[in-house]
Amino acid sequence: MNDMSPVIGPRARRQQDQRRRILDAAVTCFAQGGFHATGMQAICAEAGMSPGALYRYFPSKEAIIEAIVERDRAEAPAMLAPLLEADDVVGALVQAGRDFLTGNLQTGGMPIFIELCAEAARNPQVNAITQRCEGEIHDLLVRVIQRGQTLGQVDPALDAAAAVRLLSSLADGLLLRMGLEGIAGVDDLLVMFERAVRSFLAAPAGALR
Amino acid sequence: MNDMSPVIGPRARRQQDQRRRILDAAVTCFAQGGFHATGMQAICAEAGMSPGALYRYFPSKEAIIEAIVERDRAEAPAMLAPLLEADDVVGALVQAGRDFLTGNLQTGGMPIFIELCAEAARNPQVNAITQRCEGEIHDLLVRVIQRGQTLGQVDPALDAAAAVRLLSSLADGLLLRMGLEGIAGVDDLLVMFERAVRSFLAAPAGALR
Repeated sequence: MNDMSPVIGPRARRQQDQRRRILDAAVTCFAQGGFHATGMQAICAEAGMSPGALYRYFPSKEAIIEAIVERDRAEAPAMLAPLLEADDVVGALVQAGRDFLTGNLQTGGMPIFIELCAEAARNPQVNAITQRCEGEIHDLLVRVIQRGQTLGQVDPALDAAAAVRLLSSLADGLLLRMGLEGIAGVDDLLVMFERAVRSFLAAPAGALR
Repeated sequence: MNDMSPVIGPRARRQQDQRRRILDAAVTCFAQGGFHATGMQAICAEAGMSPGALYRYFPSKEAIIEAIVERDRAEAPAMLAPLLEADDVVGALVQAGRDFLTGNLQTGGMPIFIELCAEAARNPQVNAITQRCEGEIHDLLVRVIQRGQTLGQVDPALDAAAAVRLLSSLADGLLLRMGLEGIAGVDDLLVMFERAVRSFLAAPAGALR
């Protein structure tokens, strides 16, 4: 990925590094203490920066959380784009779901995911941020499902948009559970995840008879 | 339900009422400000009680959250027991899932559900409480699935315990999404939920040929 980055000067690179440092510190703080209970002061301490320096990059906690969500979201289209060219659409969807789940478990992404959800339930501004970012991923996945329908791999009677909301809910619910139960039972759940996705997307037996 | 309550004296009834008042106040506070950021003082204010009175019932926030989880859990076996006698096991499971989702949406149970998850991700004590309470519901649902297998309504090759974890994850993920997206798209999601549960539990087409 680094090879693909545009060439930037040392000043811009330093700004990028500083932003990354603040966001990483904020993720650590939010995961430990919750978004609501974490002050800008704690983020400064974790990042090893003065408040003055931090406020130059982010004027508020909402701005930080927006940047965290945005950073996660920015990676999604690149991860999901190959789905639009896969020969086996359903198999590729299952693999993308597995990667999403195991990736988040390995990087410890679960606590910040759940913390974001909790804050979104309380704070309309954060809810709007997460909905907007999720919208792009949703639209891409709808196109994937529709392509599967065109190729005869997904039940053509399925409402693609509603199906994506179901599958996204399933992935979120599994991430939540895996995070809380720990890594032990993950393999079983991934097998079940594949069964659920394949059976859900297939045309019901006898449906077309 | 009130007719089933054991006869109790006025003193015990008053204690029950006080406990309920504290728990209702705590649910309101946790949903608004988060478990982590909410102090005992705020719960006292919401309940209209002195700290001395409140501490007689609950020595800590953890004790309050345990009682909240316990209260929710106490209702589950009565709600789920009919599943063990249903003629149509899968239909009854779908209906129980619908009731769980719409019930939580109507009572505003979502914010406290997500708040509990967020706290469980941070606080091993709260995680242990939620896992223990969830264990009873899990065991009951495993028996329901196994009964469906005995009756020939659920794929006999399915691992019942893993299947319950998948279905519970799906229900949690849907509750999360419905809570954050609002009530507008709930009907579509409930239709998808039914399709997902039925297709997941059915023997795959051609599996036994």
